[in-house]
Amino acid sequence: MRDVAIIGIGQTPVSEHWDASIRALALEAALKALQSANIDKVDAIYVGNMISGEVTGQEHLGALLADALALDGVEAMKIEAACASGSAALRVGMMAIASGMNDLVLVAGVEKMTDTHGQDTTAALAMAADAEYEVSQGVTFVTLNALLMRRYMYEYGWKRRDFANFVVNAHANGVHNPYAMFQRPISAELYANSPTIADPVGLFDASPICDGAAAVVLAPAEYARSLSPAPVLIKGSAVATMPIAVHSRHDPLALQAARVSGQRAYQMAGVGPEDLDFFELHDAFTIMSALSLEAAGFAERGQGVRLAIENEIGLEGRIPVATLGGLKSRGHPVGATGIYQVVEAVLQLRGLAGHNQVTNARLGMTQNIGGSGATIITHIFEAME
Amino acid sequence: MRDVAIIGIGQTPVSEHWDASIRALALEAALKALQSANIDKVDAIYVGNMISGEVTGQEHLGALLADALALDGVEAMKIEAACASGSAALRVGMMAIASGMNDLVLVAGVEKMTDTHGQDTTAALAMAADAEYEVSQGVTFVTLNALLMRRYMYEYGWKRRDFANFVVNAHANGVHNPYAMFQRPISAELYANSPTIADPVGLFDASPICDGAAAVVLAPAEYARSLSPAPVLIKGSAVATMPIAVHSRHDPLALQAARVSGQRAYQMAGVGPEDLDFFELHDAFTIMSALSLEAAGFAERGQGVRLAIENEIGLEGRIPVATLGGLKSRGHPVGATGIYQVVEAVLQLRGLAGHNQVTNARLGMTQNIGGSGATIITHIFEAME
Repeated sequence: MRDVAIIGIGQTPVSEHWDASIRALALEAALKALQSANIDKVDAIYVGNMISGEVTGQEHLGALLADALALDGVEAMKIEAACASGSAALRVGMMAIASGMNDLVLVAGVEKMTDTHGQDTTAALAMAADAEYEVSQGVTFVTLNALLMRRYMYEYGWKRRDFANFVVNAHANGVHNPYAMFQRPISAELYANSPTIADPVGLFDASPICDGAAAVVLAPAEYARSLSPAPVLIKGSAVATMPIAVHSRHDPLALQAARVSGQRAYQMAGVGPEDLDFFELHDAFTIMSALSLEAAGFAERGQGVRLAIENEIGLEGRIPVATLGGLKSRGHPVGATGIYQVVEAVLQLRGLAGHNQVTNARLGMTQNIGGSGATIITHIFEAME
Repeated sequence: MRDVAIIGIGQTPVSEHWDASIRALALEAALKALQSANIDKVDAIYVGNMISGEVTGQEHLGALLADALALDGVEAMKIEAACASGSAALRVGMMAIASGMNDLVLVAGVEKMTDTHGQDTTAALAMAADAEYEVSQGVTFVTLNALLMRRYMYEYGWKRRDFANFVVNAHANGVHNPYAMFQRPISAELYANSPTIADPVGLFDASPICDGAAAVVLAPAEYARSLSPAPVLIKGSAVATMPIAVHSRHDPLALQAARVSGQRAYQMAGVGPEDLDFFELHDAFTIMSALSLEAAGFAERGQGVRLAIENEIGLEGRIPVATLGGLKSRGHPVGATGIYQVVEAVLQLRGLAGHNQVTNARLGMTQNIGGSGATIITHIFEAME
């Protein structure tokens, strides 16, 4: 197997892009990534996207992006794993190079959630849950996360205010990210007084509906340095699943697929949680931050919140998370999120994260969650010496 | 790169399955494939599907099928490339093993097109075309194919009746396939007198809307024989794209992506069209059969129809196509079709195609087309000695 490295990155601002189609967004991020890699063509394009059909009436995004890039003949397809679609596409791109089938690969993530053509976006997102056994009962992702958060508070005795620093930290970091949707701070007081959406999930516990695209260019590590002054190695990669419906899980708060995919990624990379300089986790809802930290080995069961309370998640903390705003502040254009995380990891590992730079960042992890945890994809990245 | 072989196959009948959900269909095919491979678990599942979100309100089919199979922790995702989604999933499954990331892989294709939850199926299928520049003008896949067929007849002087044997052949073969949707013959006279849908496309020029699922199990070729008495090698694999909108193509009748993906697959396999014993082509519409034969090197431009007229496409002909009914008679559950083609190729290469057996079949090709040709995926298979 050939090792694979990232040699280019691109992203659009995350926003409500009322004036840009899904094609335009994907194209902008892809062109930036190609330009940053200093190449003008690739062998294959893998596009992470969840709900383009339901929301914009467009499937077949692989061919669409290949066409927009005028790359006639290129291999292309779309990869979907709910909100983990971006990381799933990265996984396929990595395998395409590792297998020797392709050399230069573009992986893009894109989602347009505003300006809906048909489906209501909340209903489209609910297609990540079990349509027959969950959605038919009226659940949405807000209510599923509310059930999990309530159960967590009940089991371990935490109050809602104990989660505040996940949000405060994400927004403090997003202030300095020009691509973030919300570039303003939120205080613990504002968090505490925010309106409730589905008790105990408040307005600031949920990531926003938004549009955006991000892209990376991959190449075989063996000649990545000849193409890029600062390639980043994909050192670990793993996908794991668990039952799609929350009610089917023996232990809904365990986030078992995060534990499994994390362990596989650690093993492939030959590292452990103690070696990581930062962790771009999937804070689509505040409760997910706590559960992810626990499943990845940074806290005992029920104690993930403590890392927020003690600010061990800050840029100078034990395990910085959401270093450029996370899903909460940068935004969560679902199929694009996994690639935004990777772009941000590359910025950190290249020492280009500016005000948000984690000191001496050499090794970082991203984790992208599909549905309420049914698919969890973990990648570990290392700056190449 | 490790070579990859098929060690198990499974399929459901293609039909209007009003009593089976998309989960139930995928599960049936997957269980049959696992049973035929004599294994009960895999490392990864790749699901080819196009319109589950729009039609059944369910995305996240990777996790859904993993869950239905009770394979906790397994890697899983959905792959989409319009009607070529099945073959795209096969491509990813092959790369997953070739890269060394996984050993045993299940690739399933599934589509449920009846019993729609939201979108009209014809509108959902149109999402394979360009939403902004084609669909907004009112085109559907029937009308796009009608434009291509009319142009072909105009350019090369053929009459509609000249296409009849593509349909007659497909149905003659489907009669003996217990999984085919239409197990009855159609005469040239019936074809000639069939009602017009979009001139010159008649009722029997178009494949049906239907439900179905098919699956294959893949393993490294190096130990495929220890797992299966009759493994089939994936000898060639290629994906190519061309502009998504028909009006953007310099030469709409050239099917350029078929030419490119065919050449790449031939090159990888080290064979040419003259070496193939059969060709499972993508006869979603009759015109596509003619264009595919030309692009794959079996006929000169404008002369693909001649192979039908001279019955060179029959089981005893120069290049048998649709040997178990093709999309026209077996049916075209879009995201599943690419895997049905592979299952049928395996049956031929194992000598298990019964009444439809191509004599001494050793090498076969499948080709799966997304949209009006924007994505075309070619695979070449060989019986392992």
